Amino acid sequence: MLVLITYDVSTMSSEGQRRLRKVSKICQDYGQRVQHSVFECIVDATQFAVLKMKLIDAIDKEQDSLRFYQLGNNYKNKVEHVGIKDFLDMEGLLIL
Amino acid sequence: MLVLITYDVSTMSSEGQRRLRKVSKICQDYGQRVQHSVFECIVDATQFAVLKMKLIDAIDKEQDSLRFYQLGNNYKNKVEHVGIKDFLDMEGLLIL
Repeated sequence: MLVLITYDVSTMSSEGQRRLRKVSKICQDYGQRVQHSVFECIVDATQFAVLKMKLIDAIDKEQDSLRFYQLGNNYKNKVEHVGIKDFLDMEGLLIL
Repeated sequence: MLVLITYDVSTMSSEGQRRLRKVSKICQDYGQRVQHSVFECIVDATQFAVLKMKLIDAIDKEQDSLRFYQLGNNYKNKVEHVGIKDFLDMEGLLIL
């Protein structure tokens, strides 16, 4: 299934910048960046659970936020992109 | 239906900052901000078409990007939030 992950990480401190890098790195291990703070990941239920756990562990819940959107398996007609594409299309699937 | 809108607007110039404010303002007219560059809008097909047209018109396609995700009407179990909520919950519906 396609899971969309969006995040806001407070980068006011060097600790925040470290968290941002960590969140980005975890997401990169599971999917592709489509915007600066938006990743799309194709995962099964187990992978999603692990990914979510890692991300929750990486943020500071008092300062940062994560959102997870499950778009299921039939997502191609549900996603539209307009404008610049400055990210890699690793699968050739997700970018419309 | 719930439509998720994510955007990256290049703010290297004052013109870019103007576009960012415009994109944000348009999104605010149709939904609620859930993260800095993420809005959730409950719209019908006509409203979605108008919203999309306005946003496409507001960005510079060479520098900025928009993504639209259609989450349908049964979206409640598809969305999860973790961490800080520094945005208004206008409808009491979207924030889990």
